[in-house]
Amino acid sequence: MTGEQESEDLYPSRQGVHQFSARQDPTVYAPRGSVAPVSEQQINDYAEQGFMVLEDLFSAVEVKMFQQELERLRNDAAVKQSGETITEPESGEVRSIFRVHENSPLFRKLAADPRLAELARYILNDNVYIHQSRLNYKPGFRGKEFYWHSDFETWHTEDGMPRMRALSMSITLTENFDYNGPLMLVPGSHQQYAACAGETPENHFQASLKKQEYGVPSDDQLKQMVDSGGIVSAKCKPGSVIVFDCNVMHGSNGNITPEPRSNVFFVYNALSNRVVAPFCDQPPRPEYICSRENIMALPVAD
Amino acid sequence: MTGEQESEDLYPSRQGVHQFSARQDPTVYAPRGSVAPVSEQQINDYAEQGFMVLEDLFSAVEVKMFQQELERLRNDAAVKQSGETITEPESGEVRSIFRVHENSPLFRKLAADPRLAELARYILNDNVYIHQSRLNYKPGFRGKEFYWHSDFETWHTEDGMPRMRALSMSITLTENFDYNGPLMLVPGSHQQYAACAGETPENHFQASLKKQEYGVPSDDQLKQMVDSGGIVSAKCKPGSVIVFDCNVMHGSNGNITPEPRSNVFFVYNALSNRVVAPFCDQPPRPEYICSRENIMALPVAD
Repeated sequence: MTGEQESEDLYPSRQGVHQFSARQDPTVYAPRGSVAPVSEQQINDYAEQGFMVLEDLFSAVEVKMFQQELERLRNDAAVKQSGETITEPESGEVRSIFRVHENSPLFRKLAADPRLAELARYILNDNVYIHQSRLNYKPGFRGKEFYWHSDFETWHTEDGMPRMRALSMSITLTENFDYNGPLMLVPGSHQQYAACAGETPENHFQASLKKQEYGVPSDDQLKQMVDSGGIVSAKCKPGSVIVFDCNVMHGSNGNITPEPRSNVFFVYNALSNRVVAPFCDQPPRPEYICSRENIMALPVAD
Repeated sequence: MTGEQESEDLYPSRQGVHQFSARQDPTVYAPRGSVAPVSEQQINDYAEQGFMVLEDLFSAVEVKMFQQELERLRNDAAVKQSGETITEPESGEVRSIFRVHENSPLFRKLAADPRLAELARYILNDNVYIHQSRLNYKPGFRGKEFYWHSDFETWHTEDGMPRMRALSMSITLTENFDYNGPLMLVPGSHQQYAACAGETPENHFQASLKKQEYGVPSDDQLKQMVDSGGIVSAKCKPGSVIVFDCNVMHGSNGNITPEPRSNVFFVYNALSNRVVAPFCDQPPRPEYICSRENIMALPVAD
């Protein structure tokens, strides 16, 4: 019998009812009083709101390199046909490219960059590895929305991530205006777990990455969270980093403006929080969406 | 032979090419030096940008009345089945209700309210009538986008409006945040006419009011306009009025937030600019979308 099969489901979801339950894990795992790689105020805000925005963390030259790498990957026929690239439901344009922390030398290096990885290690108080990585390219003119969701709800249910001990970092590669579908977050929503109704359909990930219909909150749940916390649009310049907890409710509107909204996105998970068997009756999602076999702790800087 | 059939087409469109041509009409028709019902600065901005936002023109009590009337009409089965109501393409929720300046005593009075009608008369320097009116109800959670368009391109081509001598007023009934799909406008875009490619399909209005696919600018045209003028999101409180020229390029993103975005919308046309035969090979759109037979100049206040 393996450890996987014995895991208790602390965050059940998709069992027929929409309901809230209390978060059973800390948001910031670092011991009180330890020195953070960002300001104490930023860490406190993160603990309270569930996210923080680090403006201008990367220089214009670095952003330029990331953008060029994004263009290279977008125009690479092999990448488009790899089966690890998601296209827009209507236009067929590239929407997301997965596993860039393995497939791109530049983004492999970026994932381990101490400006990101040290902060992840601090917040999670553990060694970290990349649970998922991707380039999101929300095209102008016809970019579709990402509906509201908690990442953890999916990672827990479909991937078997046991606890809330993971976070995402979105490095912005184009300006995020208020009008080109910026990331919207509900402050404080990470403190509750919004269990979703419905089951998990077979091969759900193939549809959900284009348009999520399961694993999303009910209208009432969302309204309650927004009534309590409001909505923040993460407007920022290229080279900023939006750091957000795995359970914060977030989404983004579509984008009819000519300004694309692109970012590179890494999920850092605590090494002690490796995925087990999924908490639903479906086989695990493929390795390019969820690191299961290929786990490597990111090296700690000297 | 009637006057209708002789009209020259000063603004040809949907003849196979996307192209820009110069506007051949003024934006502000009032004689220079005449006293405006708003500030001179506001009129100058309107002439230059193609729109202005009048904050808090209506009181909280008035807004409440308008909202109640909106709810009454939305929940009126006869209205929903009138054939003059447009529903969301996926959810079936009410999106727009037309001809409210005739069907609702409250909105009939509002259309003639001197705060609105006097300003329209001033800008157009003529008596005015309502070319079209509607309630727009962009629901929360699943509100779809309105793609970019110039109203005049449609009113000219499909309705036979001869000249650019009309304007719209959108009276906001809910708060327009940056995140619930506010009206976006391209400043200065009203100075050029963006002729669209494609033809006008039969009964185009039935589809275009749900999702417009003809009579929209090309990606290149839109990019040129935005590169030159930028994008302004008309964020404002309920009871504000967004006044915009018939030819300014505008649109709005979808809305996944719980906050609906509602407004009542009147198109004022100069009495001298009554519609003639459509400038396309299709029969005129129905009377509830375009006043053709039922023209009444709004009364001038004492």
